[in-house]
Amino acid sequence: MSNLLVTPEEAAERLLALDRVLVLTHRRPDGDTIGSAAALVRGLRSLGKTAYACPNPDLTPRYEPFLVPCYPPEGFVPDAVAAVDIAAETLLPDSMRAYAAQTALSIDHHGTNRLFARETCVEPDSAATGELVYAILRRMGAEIDAQTADALYTAISTDTGCFRYSSTTPRTHRIVAELMDAGCRAAYLNQELFEIRTPARVAIESAVLRDIAYYASGAVAVAKVSQALVARTGATEDDMETLSSMARRIEGVRVGATLYERREGIKISVRTDETADASAICARFGGGGHPRAAGCTLTGEGMTLDTASREIRCAIFDLVEGLTWTDSDRQ
Amino acid sequence: MSNLLVTPEEAAERLLALDRVLVLTHRRPDGDTIGSAAALVRGLRSLGKTAYACPNPDLTPRYEPFLVPCYPPEGFVPDAVAAVDIAAETLLPDSMRAYAAQTALSIDHHGTNRLFARETCVEPDSAATGELVYAILRRMGAEIDAQTADALYTAISTDTGCFRYSSTTPRTHRIVAELMDAGCRAAYLNQELFEIRTPARVAIESAVLRDIAYYASGAVAVAKVSQALVARTGATEDDMETLSSMARRIEGVRVGATLYERREGIKISVRTDETADASAICARFGGGGHPRAAGCTLTGEGMTLDTASREIRCAIFDLVEGLTWTDSDRQ
Repeated sequence: MSNLLVTPEEAAERLLALDRVLVLTHRRPDGDTIGSAAALVRGLRSLGKTAYACPNPDLTPRYEPFLVPCYPPEGFVPDAVAAVDIAAETLLPDSMRAYAAQTALSIDHHGTNRLFARETCVEPDSAATGELVYAILRRMGAEIDAQTADALYTAISTDTGCFRYSSTTPRTHRIVAELMDAGCRAAYLNQELFEIRTPARVAIESAVLRDIAYYASGAVAVAKVSQALVARTGATEDDMETLSSMARRIEGVRVGATLYERREGIKISVRTDETADASAICARFGGGGHPRAAGCTLTGEGMTLDTASREIRCAIFDLVEGLTWTDSDRQ
Repeated sequence: MSNLLVTPEEAAERLLALDRVLVLTHRRPDGDTIGSAAALVRGLRSLGKTAYACPNPDLTPRYEPFLVPCYPPEGFVPDAVAAVDIAAETLLPDSMRAYAAQTALSIDHHGTNRLFARETCVEPDSAATGELVYAILRRMGAEIDAQTADALYTAISTDTGCFRYSSTTPRTHRIVAELMDAGCRAAYLNQELFEIRTPARVAIESAVLRDIAYYASGAVAVAKVSQALVARTGATEDDMETLSSMARRIEGVRVGATLYERREGIKISVRTDETADASAICARFGGGGHPRAAGCTLTGEGMTLDTASREIRCAIFDLVEGLTWTDSDRQ
């Protein structure tokens, strides 16, 4: 009975049978987990149910307006727990870990989902968990009002880079058309999420791009984000979003690695084109993710941006075929 | 009989009655004029007609693959001329000006269309002329194969900033879903058009952003692109695309002006939020455009980037309400 996979139709049935639901989101929450959670809570409420989103300690100001109104009153004890966009128990914030074993239903679009919930509805073809939540809410007959549509638009647009990534399908666009019909403020959200950048973001981005280093005849690019740079520019977590994709977006680059100096070590985000496997590169350091986008953290005594850069280049050298390296590229 | 407005249905009828058609595009061609022209030519051909796109002398490598295969054989004399995405006769390249008076049908989405053609089908609600061309081709029963879908996807995605701009409607997303069903290579085109940036683009963008100047407490931003910077970075026309939107995209900026040093003078692109009228600002210098995006060129003896910056700031000071200026802001 454990680790059972269910269809979106079955997921809708299960949810219809639940009440007093608490919805979990993942650590370092992005638009997909937050938008999906807010939409699920609102959809359940539209059907007369009691539903809340578990407070997420890592929530950034950008996504606060979606999740905070869904927070439970003090002392709320759920009858059932649902998880959205969470591929593994280890991705839960510490404050939610106690709920992991109680998770009745997990809704996710990661093919790597570790099936930690009692039942899991996973659709790797969905560009975002938000697509799947939309399908389930429709199946349940939940109301999708303008605010729910805003939450789902945020989930889908952020996880597809505003419909740029290859995960975007005709269904993605059709769902978005329906969300716009339902009154979502697409133009406003696009401004907030994709257009407008703070002066600090502009400063950190131009500095990171200026100092990007190329290896293997320009096929590998490494960007470094030191704590000093973050402090100097005043960039927040929200400002740093999508910084990881910049290196890979340069013409000729097959593997882009972005290194962040963090208290716990050097966090590395790897992005690749279709000729290289980002998750294999990160797996060498105990990380993981998708084939085109993955991450890992290098820890240990004396780990610096430079040391981490060398380590990740060695892994790329070992694991990616067809690159032309000079001796100095790996030093 | 002249300057007659026609519906998309009537435009389809007119096109069905034509043969040996030459399609015109505008100077400094963008994705919308090129993609629309290529799609119209291919659609007409699928109905057994002879159709070509007039060679555009300003065509950049980015859009060559769409238009060049549509060029006519030497000596081709059209029976009819159609224009796509061209708001005024003056926007035609010099080499096409002779055809202006012969234009039987103009298809456009600019509300400012000057109705220079015999008949004009203009839909300002269309996010791109490509949307309108799609509707007309469907109405005509033309085949929309994968390559035609690629051309239309390029037209629509480039004119909407990949579905970010407020001009994007539910219809935009529905048409795109149909183009994807027809086999357009959305993921590939997104990479080419929006994701991948040349090292030269990255260099010019980070330099322009670093030197951006703020006025009126950060509500006005002026970016300058000197010929020296263009030469130093090796940036091409393709690399400079969308540079004009960067200044406006910074948080707090209501009016962003980007100044380009050109042989003919200083070209200025103005972008505004909904509280300011870009076309009114540019109209003062004989330019024009949309309310949120417009352009003008400042010429004259001794016109420099600095002089032009002062001129445009004075116009903004006069025409935009609610800004807080210091004396030095206008100098």
